[in-house]
Amino acid sequence: MNTRNPLNIGAAARAMSNFGFSDLRLVNPYEPSFREARSAVGAEELLRSAQVYKRVAEAVANCVFVAGTTSGARRDLQQPLELLEEGARRIRKRLRAGKVAILFGSEKRGLSNDDLSRCHVLLRIPTRKEHGSMNLGQAVAVCLYELARGGSGLRLGGAAKAPRVASPTAGDLERLTNVLMQSLSLSGYLDARRSTAAEEKIQRMVRRLNLSAADTELLLGMLRQVHWKLGDGK
Amino acid sequence: MNTRNPLNIGAAARAMSNFGFSDLRLVNPYEPSFREARSAVGAEELLRSAQVYKRVAEAVANCVFVAGTTSGARRDLQQPLELLEEGARRIRKRLRAGKVAILFGSEKRGLSNDDLSRCHVLLRIPTRKEHGSMNLGQAVAVCLYELARGGSGLRLGGAAKAPRVASPTAGDLERLTNVLMQSLSLSGYLDARRSTAAEEKIQRMVRRLNLSAADTELLLGMLRQVHWKLGDGK
Repeated sequence: MNTRNPLNIGAAARAMSNFGFSDLRLVNPYEPSFREARSAVGAEELLRSAQVYKRVAEAVANCVFVAGTTSGARRDLQQPLELLEEGARRIRKRLRAGKVAILFGSEKRGLSNDDLSRCHVLLRIPTRKEHGSMNLGQAVAVCLYELARGGSGLRLGGAAKAPRVASPTAGDLERLTNVLMQSLSLSGYLDARRSTAAEEKIQRMVRRLNLSAADTELLLGMLRQVHWKLGDGK
Repeated sequence: MNTRNPLNIGAAARAMSNFGFSDLRLVNPYEPSFREARSAVGAEELLRSAQVYKRVAEAVANCVFVAGTTSGARRDLQQPLELLEEGARRIRKRLRAGKVAILFGSEKRGLSNDDLSRCHVLLRIPTRKEHGSMNLGQAVAVCLYELARGGSGLRLGGAAKAPRVASPTAGDLERLTNVLMQSLSLSGYLDARRSTAAEEKIQRMVRRLNLSAADTELLLGMLRQVHWKLGDGK
């Protein structure tokens, strides 16, 4: 509300679109040209269909829950102040009951006491005390990320897991170690006698590498070529 | 890297300051005037002391872990892709071993394959498939929020853990990769032209090996000897 910079409104619209939110409501935007803000990359339609209100009370009239945002610097807050993470949990619960509004204040002044008095909860993004005030577009992005994160977490949880990588057999690692040792002998790194201690050191190192089966093959191919060049290939 | 809009650099600096990060490194910023970006509200000093590099490899040289960011829209990704939340857990663990870099690409193109091949992990912010691409400053804010959010918990939990094995820096891995590639060229495994795809494949493999600092040194010693023998040593 009372935003000064149309670029910030556009940026807010972009973040909404990124995280799957669509209903943008503005209270007294300072600059009527905001609908053309170039910062709304990919969210032009969302921005064009934003609704404009004169008063906060009208803007949030059909919402079941209203959360305000604050840097937490003010000392006269008279409402529960929650860290964004816990506040987001509460908001997700309330979303089952109906629409929830998240209020962001103007760049200069944040939300007024009158605005704050209409909120069920105040959210604080855990910024540093020494520099609590965030850019408006960035604050919107962080809040919507936190809301979307927990919301889709269950859905994404299973599917996002990486498939298990196949591991090399002990035999693969043995072949790899052998061609490595032969190359090191030919190059002079290991002397002709090859001390047992040095060999064991290399055995252990190869097993520490945490190689997948595919990378074992890849390395083996490389080392075979190097070995051939060092020896017979000359 | 290769950021076009100085306002985005300023916004990134502001988010860093909000969440307690201080070391901003830029690779080939397009606009030399970025240091004066007005969007760095409250983070002017952080922005002025940002360091500029020509190449990604130089920028991350003293880091033990490198995380790239991607919208996940590309289908040719060849590295583990993790949701921001799980990736952040891994990053917090790695922070015990040394510096961690988070790489953000340019507004237009994101990170190149060459950049990505230097990453240990790729992070994906869980945006909608239909509109995955975030504004740069907002993406930085969301990533740093997620890192800072879980931060204190892990520090407490981590104190009792056994001392970690020292990790190699990105610079160490770069040196290892270089001498490996030179050896593979000399041996004929890579032909003289060295395709970019083949080089990137090797870059990625080296980072998958999960090497300790000590094993990196050990391998580097071996490969240097092999390289010497293949080349000048003959």
